[in-house]
Amino acid sequence: MIRFYNAKILTMEEPLTVRDGELWTDGDTISYIGETHAELPQFEREINADGNLLMPSFKNAHTHSAMTFLRSFAEDVPLQTWLFEKVFPYEDRLTAEDVYAFDRLAILEYLAAGTTAFFDMYFYPDSTVQAAIESGMRAVLCGSINGSAKDVERLNAQFQKFRHIHPRIGYRLGFHAEYTSDESLHRELARLAQAEKEPVFTHISETKAEHDGCIERHGASPAQYLESLGLWEYGGGGFHCVWFDQADRAVFQRRGLWFITCPCSNAKLASGIAPLKECLAEGLLLAVGTDGPASNNALDPFKEMYLGAVLQKLRNMDAAAIPAASVLRAATVGSARAMGLTDCDVLAQGKQADLIMIDLHAANMQPAHHIPESLVLSGDRSNVKLTMCAGKILYENGEYFIGVSPEEILKDTAQRIARLTQ
Amino acid sequence: MIRFYNAKILTMEEPLTVRDGELWTDGDTISYIGETHAELPQFEREINADGNLLMPSFKNAHTHSAMTFLRSFAEDVPLQTWLFEKVFPYEDRLTAEDVYAFDRLAILEYLAAGTTAFFDMYFYPDSTVQAAIESGMRAVLCGSINGSAKDVERLNAQFQKFRHIHPRIGYRLGFHAEYTSDESLHRELARLAQAEKEPVFTHISETKAEHDGCIERHGASPAQYLESLGLWEYGGGGFHCVWFDQADRAVFQRRGLWFITCPCSNAKLASGIAPLKECLAEGLLLAVGTDGPASNNALDPFKEMYLGAVLQKLRNMDAAAIPAASVLRAATVGSARAMGLTDCDVLAQGKQADLIMIDLHAANMQPAHHIPESLVLSGDRSNVKLTMCAGKILYENGEYFIGVSPEEILKDTAQRIARLTQ
Repeated sequence: MIRFYNAKILTMEEPLTVRDGELWTDGDTISYIGETHAELPQFEREINADGNLLMPSFKNAHTHSAMTFLRSFAEDVPLQTWLFEKVFPYEDRLTAEDVYAFDRLAILEYLAAGTTAFFDMYFYPDSTVQAAIESGMRAVLCGSINGSAKDVERLNAQFQKFRHIHPRIGYRLGFHAEYTSDESLHRELARLAQAEKEPVFTHISETKAEHDGCIERHGASPAQYLESLGLWEYGGGGFHCVWFDQADRAVFQRRGLWFITCPCSNAKLASGIAPLKECLAEGLLLAVGTDGPASNNALDPFKEMYLGAVLQKLRNMDAAAIPAASVLRAATVGSARAMGLTDCDVLAQGKQADLIMIDLHAANMQPAHHIPESLVLSGDRSNVKLTMCAGKILYENGEYFIGVSPEEILKDTAQRIARLTQ
Repeated sequence: MIRFYNAKILTMEEPLTVRDGELWTDGDTISYIGETHAELPQFEREINADGNLLMPSFKNAHTHSAMTFLRSFAEDVPLQTWLFEKVFPYEDRLTAEDVYAFDRLAILEYLAAGTTAFFDMYFYPDSTVQAAIESGMRAVLCGSINGSAKDVERLNAQFQKFRHIHPRIGYRLGFHAEYTSDESLHRELARLAQAEKEPVFTHISETKAEHDGCIERHGASPAQYLESLGLWEYGGGGFHCVWFDQADRAVFQRRGLWFITCPCSNAKLASGIAPLKECLAEGLLLAVGTDGPASNNALDPFKEMYLGAVLQKLRNMDAAAIPAASVLRAATVGSARAMGLTDCDVLAQGKQADLIMIDLHAANMQPAHHIPESLVLSGDRSNVKLTMCAGKILYENGEYFIGVSPEEILKDTAQRIARLTQ
């Protein structure tokens, strides 16, 4: 049992309020939130939060973590050059061991930024599972098949293998994108999703070219086309959703799908600004992801929240566009639920102890007129003092507790990167 | 004398290269950059940089530092409501002691983010001078008069008082903006600038309404109108420049004026995206500022560089738009020169020792394929390990050496904020 006392607590339950109090954990679970008891049980550790903030950890609802190896490898080049000359040829050389190593590098960055779970779409899922389990983090794998109907068999094999493999590992059906697969795949996947009563996730309407291409190919936008095939009878969601119009959003609203926005990646790759204001006004379910670290370039929920908020002001030319708290909600509660982590969404008794402590004494968090707004508009990952996943402290004041030292991870990845990019 | 060894050094001299070596300081000056000598003099301190990066510190070329007290006070409201209901009435209550206190709060944030100099436009300049001198930072004050010709006298009195007051303090002629002053002020200020052979700075074309308003009032855009009055015979520059068209940029090019961009503030207040791509293509002089912390909301050069770079990709719908290194140059060398700090611009023997050390071992800076690009696209202020101004270490590994503790500053500002915003 761990006790945090002298804390400010933002549970992220509605309506958002910050209250003074304490929080206890028992094993992987939050066992108490409230005022100080007169009589206290025996704790393994008691942490004086010193007036700092406890809140749910961030969850990264879209990423390709192992792309850490290509970060800053080729910048400021056109998207097609980047993908075909600087990404694909190097990804072809990756081994399972490389992916494990580069996932561990990403995990260092996730934990220092207060992220405890990531929704990962990449090669070699066994490697990602191993890296996540060993570190103490959560990972939800997302199917990433492309091609045609025959590939759905491989997806199903992965799904059956990973769905119950570990309490901190999840699996969601998914495919890369409409434009990298054919109709036979979409139909076969819809059948599988219906048989298993499972949600389905995919990249969708990230670029205008891809969105318009689907209309040419199928006579409908990706969202409308995929809905018509019965892909989303049991929910799911889409990554990016930049070029969504009203009819696309209506599909997402009707089916209860997750609109998973990646504002930094969409800016860096010049994909566009997603319609978050409309999305919130229409009551859609909003979550936030970083996308891979080669197209972002950080794995940092604070950067996503900041861009998520301020780009709406530019898109709408309205300083009042979207409340800052709405992106905070999306990056914590929303992303957790999108990934199926409904027991890690808010801080409450009985929920998983996936939480962070934020330094409210740092100059950039002062004055604390409105803490949720400060987290989005002036907060950054240097304010993360402690990151806990499933009741275990994995990061505290710059130190990691993940069973391996950062130095060892850096040494290992440096050798692999030299080999891969030579 | 201080010695940094085992360092990677990015002097920011052209062409940009990162080389291994060491750097020595002697008093406030850089006395040596190069390889390790066989024989070393006696040093006061020897710092093993452990492969981390030494580079010029950031300079903040536009700010209203003391607005820290209003940070997160009113968010997501229309600009006019914010200014007239949430800023002006509270600023009216400020005393000189308040400004000193809130400047000290800003200085904590500046130093932790690697900023050693700020170009400040606000009330009670004596307070800002005192806060800067005591902390060890540099400040360049910018005149902020509005009104009519008679106010120029007050500006000149300030100019004469502060121009040579201290080696780390500067003063530049300036006025708030075209739309808050009349033609008699602009003409009188032009006369003063010509008599003193001094540059002049002002807010310019920040919002479309203000830009268009000037065309209505004077039949020309702010840049063209002010040039026609002879305001910029000896240079100067403009803050924001969001709505600059080709003719406005031509004025800046012709006069050698500084285009001082504030991308975060312009996004948060929905002012727009400044034409940095055109600005660079046309060879204009580019510098970077944060604007005040109530309209940003951070005093963080990393956020400015990131937005500065990626917003150009969105504005131009081109992932190749503007090299990341160009905003790094603007936020260091450019901003220093815009403020007249030509001896603090790059790292070189004989220059002032205004520098920072960046942690290259942090996960978000790995792999180090291209360090200038990483600083802009994945770097953040948590990577700043050490900040030195005029040869003195003012910040190192989270600790401040500014003659006052952060706790004392926070306690003081909390009391003042409670009084001001009650």
